[in-house]
Amino acid sequence: MPRPRGDHEARRRDLSEAVWRVLAEHGFGGLTMRAVAAELNATTGLLTHYFPTKRDLLAYALELLDTRTQARPRREPGEGIAAIRAALLDILPLTPKDAAANKTWISSWDAALGDEGLSVDHAERYARSRKRMRVLVEAAQARGEIRAGDPGLVSEGAHAFVLGLVVQAVFDPAAFPPERQVELLDDYLAGLGGAPGGPGAPPSVT
Amino acid sequence: MPRPRGDHEARRRDLSEAVWRVLAEHGFGGLTMRAVAAELNATTGLLTHYFPTKRDLLAYALELLDTRTQARPRREPGEGIAAIRAALLDILPLTPKDAAANKTWISSWDAALGDEGLSVDHAERYARSRKRMRVLVEAAQARGEIRAGDPGLVSEGAHAFVLGLVVQAVFDPAAFPPERQVELLDDYLAGLGGAPGGPGAPPSVT
Repeated sequence: MPRPRGDHEARRRDLSEAVWRVLAEHGFGGLTMRAVAAELNATTGLLTHYFPTKRDLLAYALELLDTRTQARPRREPGEGIAAIRAALLDILPLTPKDAAANKTWISSWDAALGDEGLSVDHAERYARSRKRMRVLVEAAQARGEIRAGDPGLVSEGAHAFVLGLVVQAVFDPAAFPPERQVELLDDYLAGLGGAPGGPGAPPSVT
Repeated sequence: MPRPRGDHEARRRDLSEAVWRVLAEHGFGGLTMRAVAAELNATTGLLTHYFPTKRDLLAYALELLDTRTQARPRREPGEGIAAIRAALLDILPLTPKDAAANKTWISSWDAALGDEGLSVDHAERYARSRKRMRVLVEAAQARGEIRAGDPGLVSEGAHAFVLGLVVQAVFDPAAFPPERQVELLDDYLAGLGGAPGGPGAPPSVT
């Protein structure tokens, strides 16, 4: 019966689900071969067929986290500074589900920092993110909605701002409810406005 | 001979040094009873006298990291926006030593997120940090060096910005050499300037 491929894919899917459930419940700190095997109702012996080492399991989990992050529903982007705002709002932990995903993401940093290869993968993911942001920044600059100058400074700065806000919000959700996060983001975006008009002002002719 | 107290303190100091060396070399992910015992040339049995559980060891390591972070040499603060700049520069990984300390700090987040009590400790540390920043922000606002408005927005925003920049710089030191970090910080601070004069401008009379 010619179904090995389907079986293989079904098994990958089961595996992904099991890794995801362990991550969601215990974070990266609790991601062990034993925990994934238990989720699968399998032996750790069977699991080593897919993940010969703990590192293989970690690398797979980071890939999975990245794939699911990319695949999540996004806001309508809009144009100019509205597109920047939408992209940054998409990153913030504004719902319990997004908070859980961000928590897992933050806890992945420890695993990644302990391994040079995984650390490089993370750095590349962030570099891609900054590059996408740079395109949006250049468009907003062209519309005169944010001040002129090195678009790299704005895209790297915006990325830093939102990443740090995620960390603070995850540790202290009471101090950073969704409306406060949005207020902070809007205040940050206001700071990007070209003086004297601020965001939305027409390009200066001076 | 009445020296138990001195002995006790000497032992605490040895313990701290051993925990610190393990953190510096392996991060929080590598902080185990076994690794600390090996650093001390002691048995894990002896170590459990000081740390009955892994959690006690983690809590101690977080305290130690915090104490050493607080005790590090600081820049001359200056006044107004210069004081904000100095405080934020103190946090950035501008030297290899600071980068190593920041790496350990980031890797502590996973351990902290996995334990409610440790997570609350971290949240309180960040809240204290934001409170110190708020005092500086209010002073800079009073001097008219940054725009008026809710000082909490500025202090929480500045904290978020620098925290996220630390994360990016630790993962990608090549993309964020010290001079780029400083440039990004100065661009951020410029965004806080009260229109139309920007930082350093006299208070507006309108």
